[in-house]
Amino acid sequence: MAVGDAPLPAFFAIDGIRIGTANAGVKQTERADVTVFEIAEGSTCAGVFTRNAFCAAPVHIAKANLAATAPRYWLVNTGNANAGTGQAGFEAAQACIDALAEKTGVAADTILPFSTGVIGEPLPSAKIVASLDDALKGLGESRWADAGSAIMTTDTRPKGAIREISIAGKTVRICGLSKGAGMIKPNMATMLSYVGTDAGVSSELLQSMLNEANRLSFNRITIDGDTSTNDSAVIVATGRSGVDVDALTAEEQLQFQTVLTDIYTELAQLIVRDAEGANKFVAVEVSGAASESEAEMVAYTVAESPLVKTALYASDPNWGRILAAVGRAGVESLAVENVSIRINGVLIAEQGGRAASYTEEAGVEALTPADLLINIDLERGSDKATVWTSDLSHEYVTINAEYRT
Amino acid sequence: MAVGDAPLPAFFAIDGIRIGTANAGVKQTERADVTVFEIAEGSTCAGVFTRNAFCAAPVHIAKANLAATAPRYWLVNTGNANAGTGQAGFEAAQACIDALAEKTGVAADTILPFSTGVIGEPLPSAKIVASLDDALKGLGESRWADAGSAIMTTDTRPKGAIREISIAGKTVRICGLSKGAGMIKPNMATMLSYVGTDAGVSSELLQSMLNEANRLSFNRITIDGDTSTNDSAVIVATGRSGVDVDALTAEEQLQFQTVLTDIYTELAQLIVRDAEGANKFVAVEVSGAASESEAEMVAYTVAESPLVKTALYASDPNWGRILAAVGRAGVESLAVENVSIRINGVLIAEQGGRAASYTEEAGVEALTPADLLINIDLERGSDKATVWTSDLSHEYVTINAEYRT
Repeated sequence: MAVGDAPLPAFFAIDGIRIGTANAGVKQTERADVTVFEIAEGSTCAGVFTRNAFCAAPVHIAKANLAATAPRYWLVNTGNANAGTGQAGFEAAQACIDALAEKTGVAADTILPFSTGVIGEPLPSAKIVASLDDALKGLGESRWADAGSAIMTTDTRPKGAIREISIAGKTVRICGLSKGAGMIKPNMATMLSYVGTDAGVSSELLQSMLNEANRLSFNRITIDGDTSTNDSAVIVATGRSGVDVDALTAEEQLQFQTVLTDIYTELAQLIVRDAEGANKFVAVEVSGAASESEAEMVAYTVAESPLVKTALYASDPNWGRILAAVGRAGVESLAVENVSIRINGVLIAEQGGRAASYTEEAGVEALTPADLLINIDLERGSDKATVWTSDLSHEYVTINAEYRT
Repeated sequence: MAVGDAPLPAFFAIDGIRIGTANAGVKQTERADVTVFEIAEGSTCAGVFTRNAFCAAPVHIAKANLAATAPRYWLVNTGNANAGTGQAGFEAAQACIDALAEKTGVAADTILPFSTGVIGEPLPSAKIVASLDDALKGLGESRWADAGSAIMTTDTRPKGAIREISIAGKTVRICGLSKGAGMIKPNMATMLSYVGTDAGVSSELLQSMLNEANRLSFNRITIDGDTSTNDSAVIVATGRSGVDVDALTAEEQLQFQTVLTDIYTELAQLIVRDAEGANKFVAVEVSGAASESEAEMVAYTVAESPLVKTALYASDPNWGRILAAVGRAGVESLAVENVSIRINGVLIAEQGGRAASYTEEAGVEALTPADLLINIDLERGSDKATVWTSDLSHEYVTINAEYRT
């Protein structure tokens, strides 16, 4: 189940990044489950990681190595999250990157490990180590699409986005991948994202640009309110385009930031469109809020309400459930008589009740498309925020009840 | 779908309270949907109500009338929540209590109205008014069981509890009813509760005792994290037993409070056992917390995690999802290596990972019963809290996707 079609884009090569994949048989043996990103010397990296207190061993190691070095490899496995695995988990992750370091001649702390899959099972590091020769043998610049498939878990399809822009008279390219289809919620999700660009950016500026892009993309999606122990989004800037973002004008830097936010938003939305059991792609836009955080709070409360989500699944214009969710979002002194709600442009609620102009037929029609925009206007300020989510379906329960068995 | 059997108890009469029901055909015509509780003069009442900003018209009126008068009647309808109905909703609720006041000779503001059912549809007050003669004709002291059925919406069975205790050498009786099977979450749920006792309690003391009982019962259950616009729990004390609780010793008062908390806990748990689509009744007990609110926060995060709830539905000992939920609960400086998790006594996780003694077989066996106790020990203090919840099943989605159609 997934909303609409979302074919992979025609990835281009990013000069300075090579990708290889292999089938290590971590959990299944039908497709590649190990991915190696090789990063040219002189590149810069930045990353954002889960805030879950039970963050997985590879996340600890990736954060430490990113802080200490200029990374030369990203090593990703699916099928096993290496989370909740204690000291043995650290040793298993280290064994994988030690082996890759030995085979490639780089220092082990220049390798960032990533794992995704089932929590709490010992990572079969020997299988991953044994697959590395295969992955390295296949390294190539044009393998973004292969990597998109190799990083999937319960995803029904690979997810990628590309951008090509002209800045300061030169062409800058960005390729991005994401994976994730559940346990999705800001700060962040069971999601991984790998982005590469041939722009040159200092690691400090790259980190700050990634933070901003992430805030408005991966941190604005929610599928089931759960956050994972493994979420990581990393970006590498190789500088091979000859564009030095740090040296650009403020306006040109903003242009680059906008494109970055844009590609991250696309990668984030692709996850929601492939949400476990999703039939609807839902944007919840709260406007007229007294602050952006207030708008976010209301948007999340609506986007995570099981009653709202089951109604959306049924294409049922049960706007009362939306109102009830707004009402419990914790907005101080909310004047309910000012709140209005639109779905795909149809005014369904105003003045704290059903809109005078509303008809059941119009409501049903508004809910028919797979893409829904719910706008909630609080009319108490000028701030707004949008959160993207999916419906809650029988398939969601099936997928999550049967994941391990 | 409901967990186990829960037959109604053998209600006794509460001297000073008479109950009548009628079929007004608010939404369906198969069974009674209007209930009248007649309260003898000299009784005291207390109530707790939803904190949802979109609280329904009858809630506003009930709160105001309770604050201003000594209530003589409670009037309940199911099939329509009279919520999100604007000014017309107030007028419809008032029309119902005005009619009852005229028929019974009491002042309209001594009547507390309650409505439950679909949100946002106009309340058919004329139908309710037309049913009042029937309800009044049938008034009797032994009709608690009838009322238990007449207040149901998506409930699969009526819910009631009784207590009989000896205090200060006299017998005190308590009868209680509750309804609710979804949209359940503290502060509070789509739940209604009506309790009567023949103890005598001043309205101030009754309110404070109800608050305490409610805090540990209805405010400790969660099914889907949603709160309703209509939740109300009211209690009446008729004093006909001759026991004056205000005049009791501190120890005797505590005895009465304990019984009250106990009957409310039973009424709350009955709602969870009848949760929409529930196959499991789950107590999430968090101990070793630095504060009660910290324990509550962790218990709720686990109890409301869709991933945990779908795993419980599948009887899947996916303890990693429980760990992940604990990890995102927002506990400051959580030492994950101290956290241990038991399910029905089986140690499944310790030191932030799978317990050394754990076997998959033991985990599956622990999850087999319909009644589950998940204990999470944070080992950072001495406070604890228990929250009761249910699993998340296909039936939940079916019920909530089809509720209106």
